[in-house]
Amino acid sequence: MPEQKLIPPELPGGFRDYLPAEQSRRIKILRIIEEVYRQFGFLPLDTPEVERWSVLTGNEVTAMRIYQVGLGDRTDEPLALRFDLTVPLARVIAAYGNDLPKPFKRYQLGRVFRGETSQRGRYNGFYQFDIDTVYSSSMLADAEIVAIIWHTFQALGIPKVTIKINNRKILSGLAEMIGIREQANTLFQILDRIDKIGMKDVVKLLQRPPDNELDESAVNLSGEDVDLVQDFLSIAAEATDPLNEVGKFFGESTEIGTQGILELYQLKSFVADMDVPPDRVVVDLAVARGLGYYTGPVFETSLDNLPSIGSIFSGGRYDGLVGRFSNTSVPATGASIGVDRLFAALEELQALGRFQSTATQVFIQVFSPEHLNRYLRLANFLRQHGFATEVYSGDERAFKAQLAYALKQEIPIMIIGGPDELSKGVWQVKDIRNRKQVEVGDSSLLEHLKSLLC
Amino acid sequence: MPEQKLIPPELPGGFRDYLPAEQSRRIKILRIIEEVYRQFGFLPLDTPEVERWSVLTGNEVTAMRIYQVGLGDRTDEPLALRFDLTVPLARVIAAYGNDLPKPFKRYQLGRVFRGETSQRGRYNGFYQFDIDTVYSSSMLADAEIVAIIWHTFQALGIPKVTIKINNRKILSGLAEMIGIREQANTLFQILDRIDKIGMKDVVKLLQRPPDNELDESAVNLSGEDVDLVQDFLSIAAEATDPLNEVGKFFGESTEIGTQGILELYQLKSFVADMDVPPDRVVVDLAVARGLGYYTGPVFETSLDNLPSIGSIFSGGRYDGLVGRFSNTSVPATGASIGVDRLFAALEELQALGRFQSTATQVFIQVFSPEHLNRYLRLANFLRQHGFATEVYSGDERAFKAQLAYALKQEIPIMIIGGPDELSKGVWQVKDIRNRKQVEVGDSSLLEHLKSLLC
Repeated sequence: MPEQKLIPPELPGGFRDYLPAEQSRRIKILRIIEEVYRQFGFLPLDTPEVERWSVLTGNEVTAMRIYQVGLGDRTDEPLALRFDLTVPLARVIAAYGNDLPKPFKRYQLGRVFRGETSQRGRYNGFYQFDIDTVYSSSMLADAEIVAIIWHTFQALGIPKVTIKINNRKILSGLAEMIGIREQANTLFQILDRIDKIGMKDVVKLLQRPPDNELDESAVNLSGEDVDLVQDFLSIAAEATDPLNEVGKFFGESTEIGTQGILELYQLKSFVADMDVPPDRVVVDLAVARGLGYYTGPVFETSLDNLPSIGSIFSGGRYDGLVGRFSNTSVPATGASIGVDRLFAALEELQALGRFQSTATQVFIQVFSPEHLNRYLRLANFLRQHGFATEVYSGDERAFKAQLAYALKQEIPIMIIGGPDELSKGVWQVKDIRNRKQVEVGDSSLLEHLKSLLC
Repeated sequence: MPEQKLIPPELPGGFRDYLPAEQSRRIKILRIIEEVYRQFGFLPLDTPEVERWSVLTGNEVTAMRIYQVGLGDRTDEPLALRFDLTVPLARVIAAYGNDLPKPFKRYQLGRVFRGETSQRGRYNGFYQFDIDTVYSSSMLADAEIVAIIWHTFQALGIPKVTIKINNRKILSGLAEMIGIREQANTLFQILDRIDKIGMKDVVKLLQRPPDNELDESAVNLSGEDVDLVQDFLSIAAEATDPLNEVGKFFGESTEIGTQGILELYQLKSFVADMDVPPDRVVVDLAVARGLGYYTGPVFETSLDNLPSIGSIFSGGRYDGLVGRFSNTSVPATGASIGVDRLFAALEELQALGRFQSTATQVFIQVFSPEHLNRYLRLANFLRQHGFATEVYSGDERAFKAQLAYALKQEIPIMIIGGPDELSKGVWQVKDIRNRKQVEVGDSSLLEHLKSLLC
């Protein structure tokens, strides 16, 4: 055969692997989150990474860079990789709605794909872990999402979290007061950036006139309107009752704004009954969330000890969910964890240590290969009693190589049985963590391991 | 806004969703399998669905229909969706080999994608759950895979399984005896079909001359060679010691064949020490596995009560793993579960019932909305004590709708607290499974639920 040109074993840019040490931790952490979701009655959904292009985009031009998928030689329907888990949820609701329980409370973990040029800490393929309640317009459903956000961080050992809430209806009230309709979303997105760019630059953006007739990205506010926005934003999150202040600010001028205030009052009252400290759920009038599809309450998290990381677990109410697929109106609310960002946060907070990664508890050294059958039977016996056990199966039989393996895998216990031990019916049990080694008789081995490991 | 054309909420052909009732079961079953893998010291790996085209294909033309992935407007490297989990493993080994433990024992669950025209029960996107040991040429590693196959089925409640084993080296010995080299794989693939098409058609295929000069798919055996193959295949799996019979058949004529026999002897001996009944591991000389990359022992499973479903958990040794990426030789062995086929089997065997799908244990009816705070606080309390609990959060408040939800979700316990109950400090606890309803005081509620649910 002719010598073949070697292929570089590389991933596409913007994608990453999770090697076992990391992936073990990830699984542990994801299951803790899942358990919180399940405790609140949510069930898992799984949908494919590949969807129809029309389903993902609504056949509209989108600024999102979506990966196309195809077989190349067919003229079939265009396919694409999902860019979030919300559009697939909407498709599921439209497709199976009649058969689904109402409310439909589902969680979904999955990789999503976005073709934006990768930046540091941003990937083209990344995991989201979503939770949503569909078919409920009750603030109870929104409150449940907020409570789950809170309890998730508690379960992960990150107790100090602030959940910022706002309501798109309150923002719409502001837009109504100013007399903005078409550019309302642009206005919200500018407000949303205040934490990053500060009030001065927000004011500049608000006042910017359109570049030309087609420029729809400018809100072009008058000085008077800018003052109004500043007054609105100055209603501090620290006020004893900021919602009451917003109410005074609105007066009788906006029905939708007033409705937004009432919803948040109700939301906060429910959340307080769900074991979330009321002072950790804070109204922040600048929170808008970038996406245009939110219609009611919106939520963001901020880690008190790591504010720079931004929101890890965010969401809100979006009642236009299935509009693309059906003329029925379906209320929904939910939130999404950026899994990779969560792990980055846990790492920076040095909170990853809790999530031990090892699987194997007992490692049986192959001391004398002719006694492999004894080692294998011991391994069976220990597995039957619940200890994850492995007999070394590598090619390098030197003691050093075997120990290196056990150390690398962070296996706590090593068992050694040479000809002497086997003839006496004993084992050498080495606790690799503290290097203590004890000779233990066959009959007391289980008890001894329990004392070391349980 | 102009009325938009509605998009059909459909998946691409050949893809499927897993709705919560099914997905809950799937997760339960997959975790049982995972636990077996972990008990043997295997750790999880995760790699992206998207890989470079060159990595997946080795830049060679392939008969496999691989999905292309791209952003359309770039001239970047061509990307593709993975079609198995083995090539990504090979890439990982080539890329991180120096940093990996040796042996490297990993499991991986993931969706893979193949563009073949979908048939009944076959999907274009389907899950595989793989387990592999890399960097071990020892039969111990192969034996471990066989033992894991066995113990996986035991853990899933499918006790009656036959694991068929063979060795590519034995088949190579046969090819050597006949004097076939280039078409050895074609020969093996014909043998592999004997269960499906019978000996008569196998003989026909073996004798078929090439259609033309370029036809490499014909082995074109002489009558004498066909007799030899038939003699070989007639060494029945039921013989007391079929390996011994093959040894006699080979005589001194093939070194590689003899090596294959010795390997299987060793494999069987190790497996017997791993708590697998020796009579459930059967040498079947026709088993070849379709893929060309196997180099040593190969394994297939057959469910004694459902032979028609074919092999659900198969694999073998493939020592040329990283050849595409590196000139180093890396031994590896492993097996893969076809997850969807496994589920189909569990369903046909009526063995799915064991894997209860419900998450929520206690459902609190919203009897009087003005007392929602009481319901919410009860739910907290129960969750704190480990009961997955939900308060109804749907829009339809009628009792019928609430009960329908609990029934649909198969929630066992419903708690009702109307004004009477709340004023007396009691709850109505209804066991939905047997329709028994009891009035229980606040203070004995936990005990009562434990008696019903634990």
